[in-house]
Amino acid sequence: MNEGFTLWFTGMSGAGKSTLANLVAEELRRRHHRVEILDGDEVRTNLSKGLGFSKEDRDTNIRRIGYVCNLLARNGVIAISAAISPYRNVRDEVRATHQRFVEVYMKCPLDKLVERDVKGLYKKALAGEIPVFTGVSDPYEEPLSPELVIQSDSETVEQSFRKLISRLEALSYIHTDGVVR
Amino acid sequence: MNEGFTLWFTGMSGAGKSTLANLVAEELRRRHHRVEILDGDEVRTNLSKGLGFSKEDRDTNIRRIGYVCNLLARNGVIAISAAISPYRNVRDEVRATHQRFVEVYMKCPLDKLVERDVKGLYKKALAGEIPVFTGVSDPYEEPLSPELVIQSDSETVEQSFRKLISRLEALSYIHTDGVVR
Repeated sequence: MNEGFTLWFTGMSGAGKSTLANLVAEELRRRHHRVEILDGDEVRTNLSKGLGFSKEDRDTNIRRIGYVCNLLARNGVIAISAAISPYRNVRDEVRATHQRFVEVYMKCPLDKLVERDVKGLYKKALAGEIPVFTGVSDPYEEPLSPELVIQSDSETVEQSFRKLISRLEALSYIHTDGVVR
Repeated sequence: MNEGFTLWFTGMSGAGKSTLANLVAEELRRRHHRVEILDGDEVRTNLSKGLGFSKEDRDTNIRRIGYVCNLLARNGVIAISAAISPYRNVRDEVRATHQRFVEVYMKCPLDKLVERDVKGLYKKALAGEIPVFTGVSDPYEEPLSPELVIQSDSETVEQSFRKLISRLEALSYIHTDGVVR
């Protein structure tokens, strides 16, 4: 029996990918799954040092994450990717290598992201201090048929978390939780 | 219980790393272990496209293989690396990230490798047609205390295979085999 699959978050910077990824990872570990998070920054250090932010380099970075996720997933691990992954064709290419792939689109309008701007990156990007920035000066291509859309501007984190867990349960990809909370 | 570990082959081109890696992988799968082989060529395609054969690029390539092996090993998989990995310090760096690491040195004198030359690479390297080639025009640093040394010039593949399986059994890293053969 193979319990592995890949949980692939996509969305712009600040849309809440890492936050939700970490919450879900914690819950899945509590339910006795093996879980690994491949965070965008960690991967850039360990797998993609030297790559930039051109389409080609971004695609290469995403292919590498996808390759590693697939290695993990086919060995029973829930592999979670939380990279922006702005291009649809490469996400779909990664999906095609997988047996079980769950794409979660963290959707948030640009003006909300600019308003929040937790890391101060949008301010810099809009001022031209970051030359290539997804959603500002570089494209973001929405998924056409993701397994789940999270409206991170209108849902609370708790609501998003419950929606995602329910979706994974509905897919029968995760252990159900007998505990009433 | 975590059954994972990394089985790290090192040695010059043609010393028999891939042959032994594949034989052992087959046997370990038969004993119901999860196994992944990270072959040098496959990894260069999937993780290290664009990297060359300078010390820096080789080190980066090996660090990436080590990173992926560790992700697999800590999730119960026997991760097998069969890359040349000529530099001692990076091999030891990878070892240090692991909980369980088995280094197998495939030892074979250069003249024997040149004599065999299965892929015709040594002939080309000696003729200067391959500018950077481990053991000819680029260093190979022997491991100082590998878990196992395979003398691939004087042992048969069958002998090497049995030595390696015995070593892994002695370390209690693999399921014992009840079948008499």
